[in-house]
Amino acid sequence: MIKLYGKNCVVEAIHAKAPLKSVYILKDYKNKSGYLEDKLKESNIEIKYETKEFMNKTFGNHNQGYGAFRKDYENYDLDYVIRSDKKQKRVLILDGVADPQNFGAIIRSCDAFSFDAIILGNNRSVPITEVVCHVSTGAIEYVPIIYVNSLNTAVKALKDNGFWIIATDASGNSVIEDIDQSLDLALIIGSEGFGMTKTLVKASDYIVKIPMSGHVNSLNASVSAGILLEKLHINKE
Amino acid sequence: MIKLYGKNCVVEAIHAKAPLKSVYILKDYKNKSGYLEDKLKESNIEIKYETKEFMNKTFGNHNQGYGAFRKDYENYDLDYVIRSDKKQKRVLILDGVADPQNFGAIIRSCDAFSFDAIILGNNRSVPITEVVCHVSTGAIEYVPIIYVNSLNTAVKALKDNGFWIIATDASGNSVIEDIDQSLDLALIIGSEGFGMTKTLVKASDYIVKIPMSGHVNSLNASVSAGILLEKLHINKE
Repeated sequence: MIKLYGKNCVVEAIHAKAPLKSVYILKDYKNKSGYLEDKLKESNIEIKYETKEFMNKTFGNHNQGYGAFRKDYENYDLDYVIRSDKKQKRVLILDGVADPQNFGAIIRSCDAFSFDAIILGNNRSVPITEVVCHVSTGAIEYVPIIYVNSLNTAVKALKDNGFWIIATDASGNSVIEDIDQSLDLALIIGSEGFGMTKTLVKASDYIVKIPMSGHVNSLNASVSAGILLEKLHINKE
Repeated sequence: MIKLYGKNCVVEAIHAKAPLKSVYILKDYKNKSGYLEDKLKESNIEIKYETKEFMNKTFGNHNQGYGAFRKDYENYDLDYVIRSDKKQKRVLILDGVADPQNFGAIIRSCDAFSFDAIILGNNRSVPITEVVCHVSTGAIEYVPIIYVNSLNTAVKALKDNGFWIIATDASGNSVIEDIDQSLDLALIIGSEGFGMTKTLVKASDYIVKIPMSGHVNSLNASVSAGILLEKLHINKE
């Protein structure tokens, strides 16, 4: 069971027909959340109206008057992306990204730019926590998350199934614009502190860099991910 | 006086010849920070070697063995960008961005993509805090920050001095690629919760959106800023 808090997070879970146990709304909002309350009654999800004290105690101070209990997120497996019949597949691989704020923001970008799934290694990665869900502003309901035992094995399986692998590193000799957008692509983003695992860089078909011309010359991990995901976005409206 | 903590933050302040009072290094690193210690001796900045307990107590748990006290950051004024003789000027205006994590990540992107300065309103914005400096990983040393009393007045002054103003909003009818890169440009990013002030949207020459095709269709403020800043980056290597 996982706690959801914050208006967007709870509203998106309801929209996505997520397996919610019960939804808590601040008393003062009773019969004021119109559409939301109708939707919940329709889905036979119990609504509990509670005091501010209860909401803060149960859901923390960032609840904005909305909280819920949800069944844990499903762990998809790699076959989900490999067997998909999507025309141009896009997956994001997070190599050691451990910060829940970054993970949440990246999930949001994956939803916005139509990425099919996010793959993470079991051992060095951030799990799906309450903070991750909150920061994703509900986008977590739409982006399948795949935890695997070995990213090396996962990358091999993706390659064997027609994916082209893109590593990101300051030493890269390509830019993302060089890459043929009609391919099935897996983009790897490394952790901020330690960069990308060498074996993954070695297994990649492209190593891309984001050209920069400042002094510090590194970006926040969710910002680099966002810049590259946007450039690989297909099916723009 | 402001506290700096974290290796990158302290190292960049030293590189940038920032007005540091004293630098604290974890005892265990004594004579192991080679270049850094030489640089400090050269600049006559006092180094104090301290225990882990002292470092954590004084600089918090994310100090990575490095801390410093620095004179407060200079508040630049609008003339700094208006009078600059740069060929293509680029400024970022943050309209109500209040989250220090986002502000820090945005400063980092502004450094990487050669933006000349960041302008914020005095009343609704995040100040330059220790967290902002830390998250900027030292990029704060290279990006002038301008706090103004009124963003409306600042935007008018920029327009009067040849800048073209770009607002960002989901209702936008342009994309950033439409904009003539040879112009002097001021990009406005709104707050996550409340979006952009209407008077600022009205004063803008362009309203751009980032095309998205997901369900939630909004990005973290530092991610949208990063995507747009990268596209306005001039002087790429």
